[in-house]
Amino acid sequence: MDVNVAITQMKEQRESYIKRFSEALAIPSVSALQQHKPDMHRMARWLAKQMEVMGLEHVELMPTPKNPIVYGDWLHAPGSPTVLVYGHYDVQPVDPLSEWISPPFEPAIRGDYIYARGASDMKGQIFAQLMAVEALLKTGGGLPVNLKYLIEGDEEVGSPPLQEFIRRHRDRLHCDAVLNCDSIIHAASMPSLVYALRGLAYFELEICGSPQDLHSGSFGGIIRNPIDVLCGVLAGMHDKKGRVTLPGFYDKVRTLSDEERAVLMEGPYNDEYYLKLSASRGLYGEEGYSSVERLAVRPCLDVNGIWGGYEGKGAKTVLPAKAGAKFSMRLVPDQELNALESQVRAYLEQAVPRECRWKLTLHSLGPGAVMERNSRYIQAAVEAQETVFGRKPFFRREGASVPVVGMMQEELGVDSVMLGFGLPDDGIHGPNEKQSLSLLFKGMETYLRYMDILGSNV
Amino acid sequence: MDVNVAITQMKEQRESYIKRFSEALAIPSVSALQQHKPDMHRMARWLAKQMEVMGLEHVELMPTPKNPIVYGDWLHAPGSPTVLVYGHYDVQPVDPLSEWISPPFEPAIRGDYIYARGASDMKGQIFAQLMAVEALLKTGGGLPVNLKYLIEGDEEVGSPPLQEFIRRHRDRLHCDAVLNCDSIIHAASMPSLVYALRGLAYFELEICGSPQDLHSGSFGGIIRNPIDVLCGVLAGMHDKKGRVTLPGFYDKVRTLSDEERAVLMEGPYNDEYYLKLSASRGLYGEEGYSSVERLAVRPCLDVNGIWGGYEGKGAKTVLPAKAGAKFSMRLVPDQELNALESQVRAYLEQAVPRECRWKLTLHSLGPGAVMERNSRYIQAAVEAQETVFGRKPFFRREGASVPVVGMMQEELGVDSVMLGFGLPDDGIHGPNEKQSLSLLFKGMETYLRYMDILGSNV
Repeated sequence: MDVNVAITQMKEQRESYIKRFSEALAIPSVSALQQHKPDMHRMARWLAKQMEVMGLEHVELMPTPKNPIVYGDWLHAPGSPTVLVYGHYDVQPVDPLSEWISPPFEPAIRGDYIYARGASDMKGQIFAQLMAVEALLKTGGGLPVNLKYLIEGDEEVGSPPLQEFIRRHRDRLHCDAVLNCDSIIHAASMPSLVYALRGLAYFELEICGSPQDLHSGSFGGIIRNPIDVLCGVLAGMHDKKGRVTLPGFYDKVRTLSDEERAVLMEGPYNDEYYLKLSASRGLYGEEGYSSVERLAVRPCLDVNGIWGGYEGKGAKTVLPAKAGAKFSMRLVPDQELNALESQVRAYLEQAVPRECRWKLTLHSLGPGAVMERNSRYIQAAVEAQETVFGRKPFFRREGASVPVVGMMQEELGVDSVMLGFGLPDDGIHGPNEKQSLSLLFKGMETYLRYMDILGSNV
Repeated sequence: MDVNVAITQMKEQRESYIKRFSEALAIPSVSALQQHKPDMHRMARWLAKQMEVMGLEHVELMPTPKNPIVYGDWLHAPGSPTVLVYGHYDVQPVDPLSEWISPPFEPAIRGDYIYARGASDMKGQIFAQLMAVEALLKTGGGLPVNLKYLIEGDEEVGSPPLQEFIRRHRDRLHCDAVLNCDSIIHAASMPSLVYALRGLAYFELEICGSPQDLHSGSFGGIIRNPIDVLCGVLAGMHDKKGRVTLPGFYDKVRTLSDEERAVLMEGPYNDEYYLKLSASRGLYGEEGYSSVERLAVRPCLDVNGIWGGYEGKGAKTVLPAKAGAKFSMRLVPDQELNALESQVRAYLEQAVPRECRWKLTLHSLGPGAVMERNSRYIQAAVEAQETVFGRKPFFRREGASVPVVGMMQEELGVDSVMLGFGLPDDGIHGPNEKQSLSLLFKGMETYLRYMDILGSNV
C-alpha cells in the first residue's frame, strides 16, 4: 500500500469520479416522502454495489422498521484500530422547488460547485470516504485500519430505528471509534474539527382555558386568556440576565477549564462572525459568557413554535380555548437528562394560574457529548487535515445536536470523530444545495491520509 | 289605529307568519362568500317587496360598493318622533355543515324553535319588527311614529360601506333615535335592555429578528428569539393586578356612579353566572372590580391570535425570523380613541429590545357608547317589554361592540335603542342556529307596543 500512489491515481480520475457521484445525486432518496420509498431502496442498492465492487465484504442491506441500513466491512488489519464509518443516504425534501436554478435531482456543475439535493448533506461526504477506500484497495496493499460501515436511510426524519438497531447489532458494530462523515469545516481554506455537540430536549406545551372559544367582547376582562398565560409562562422561562429560570437547570453544567477555553479561543469565532452569519441586528445571550460559550458550552432554551386563536387575515375577536407552543433546550454535559422534564413541570406548577390547565409532552431527549480532543482518533484527523489543507485545523464545539454521536457513546461506548467537508453556506436543507468539487477531492485525500495515519500510529 | 285589534289579528295569523318567515330563511344570504352574491340581491328584493306590500313608501335598494342597503319609510305622523330602524339581512357562513341536524337553509321546526341560519341573527328580529308595522298599518289607522329603515347586507363582514353610506345620506336618514333590532334579551322569561356597549381597537403586531429562519442549535443562545420577545411584550401588557400597563390607558376612563352601579346590580349577572356561561375553571380580571364592571364598565386587552415558527406535528428545531400576534382592546367612555395607537407604540418602544424590529398595524378602531337610560326612547322600550313579558326588564351594559351604534352617534347624533329578542343560546354563528317562535311573536307584540307607547308619549 502506497498512500502517495493512491492519491496520485485518485487525482487522475476526476471526471470518472464526478460521473459516479452524479449517479448517486440523481436518485431522489427523500426519506420524508412516502412516494420516494422505491428510491430509498435504489439508493441503498447503489451504495451496496459500490461497496462490493471496490472490495468491501459482508455487504448487506439490513432491514429496519423504516429504510434499510447499508452495512459492509473490511477487517484484515489485525492489530490496527477498527473504525465504524457512519453516514446517511437519505436527503431532505426539495421544496420550494421553484427556487432551484437546476432541477434538484439533475446534478449540474457551475464553476467549482456541483448542485443537487444531497450534494453536501451528505452524499458528497460518504462518496469521498468510499472513494478514498477504493483508491487504497486498488493499490493492492489493503487498508491500514479495519473498517465497518453503517449508512442509514432515516437521518433526515430523526433516525427513528437507529438506536434500537445499534443495540441489537452491538457485537457486529463493535469498534474503537466512529468516523462520522456528516460534518463540515469552517471554510474551504480553513479546516476545523468539531469535538463537542449539544444535546436536545424538545417539548410541547398546551394551555387550556374555557372548553370552547369565546367571544372576546362578551368575556374579555373576566376570564384568563390562554394565550396571555402561555406568553407569561414562556417569557418567564428566562430572567433579565438571559438565564433559564427552570429550577436546577444549571446545577450540573460542567465548567469550562482554562485550557479548553484557550483552545476554543483559537478559532475565528467572535461576535462579529456570528453577527454576520445570523444577519441579526445584535447578539444576545446569557450574561457573563462569550458567544462561543453561549453557543456550545452553555445550555439554552428557545421557543420553536407558537400558536393560538386567530391567525388569518384581518380581525377576529376570539378569546381562544387554548394555545400551544413548542420549545426546546440545547443541553451540555453534565446536565441530567432525566431531571429536565421534572424541572419543567415544577416550573409550570407554579407559573400556570389555577384557572388554566396545561399539558406537557416530551418529543425527544438526547444527550450532548464532549469528545477527548487528545485521543489518537481525533489527533489523526488533525494531522490529516493539516497535511491536506496546509494549516492546522482549529477545534470547535458545535451548538447543534447530532443524536447518533450520543447513541454511539451510549450503545457502543465509543467517541465519534466528526470529519466531513461540507461548508456552512452549502445551502443544505434549502434550494440550490451545492458541494465544492475541489473540497470533495480534498476530502477524499483527507480520508485517505486519515486511515493511513491512524494505521501507522499503532 | 287600535293596538289591541292589531295584536289580536297578529296572533291569529301564526301559521301565515311562519310561512313567510320561512321564505326569508330559505335564501342563503351569506355575505362572506362570493358565490352567494345573487342570493344577497334576492334577499334584498324579498325585503323590499314585503315593505312595499305592507305599505311603506320610497322603498329602494340603495347601491353601496358591497351589497345594497334596503331603504323604506313611512312619514305620516307629524309631531311624532322619527325612528330609524336598523337591521341586516346577511347571515354568517354555515360551516361546519356536517353538524347541522337539518340543512341551514331549509327551515325546520322542532318544538318551539325554528332552525335555520339567520333565524336569530337577525332575520327573525327584522321580520318581527316588519310584521308589527304591517299589523298596525292593516288596522287602517297608520303608525303612531314616523319610521325609516336601513337594512344592510354586510354586517357579518364588518359593514365596510356603512359609515360612508350614513354620512352621504345624512339628510335622508335624519331621525330622533335608532331602533337597533340586532339584539338579544337575557332569557325568554326575563327581558333585558342593553344601554351601553364597549368600543374596539384591534391591532396586529409583528416582531422580526434575523431576516431568515435559523437553526436553533447553531444559533440558540446567542440571538434574540422573536417568539420569546413577542411573549415578553404581550405578557408585559398586563401587570400582576390584571391591569393593562399601556401608558395612559386608564386616564380618561369614566367612573361608574353609585346610581348606575345600583342599576347594574339589579341584573342577574354575578360570578356564578359568568363561571357557568364561560365553563371556565375560574374567573380572573382587574383587581378591585366585580365581573359586571370588568366586563363592560372597564376597558380590557386580549390577545386574539398568535403565531410563529413551527406549528406542525413533531419537532422542528427552528429559531424563527419572526412572530406575530393580534390583540385588541375593548374600550369604554371616555377613552381617547386617537391616543390608543400612540399608547401602544410608546409601550413597544421600551418593551421591544433593540435586537428586534417591530411593526404595528391598526385593523379597526371604534368607540364605545353609553346611552341615556332615562330617555323617552329607552323608557318606551322598558314599558313595552314590561307589558308583554309581565316583568320589568333589567338594564345591562354589553361587553362586546356594535360599531353601528357608534356610527349613528357620530354621523346622525342619535342614540340607539337595542331592542331584539334573540337568546344567548340561540347558537348564532354556529351550527343549528335557532329562534324561539313564542319569542318571535312576543317580539312582534313588543315592537308594536313600543311604537304605540312612543307615539302616545308625545
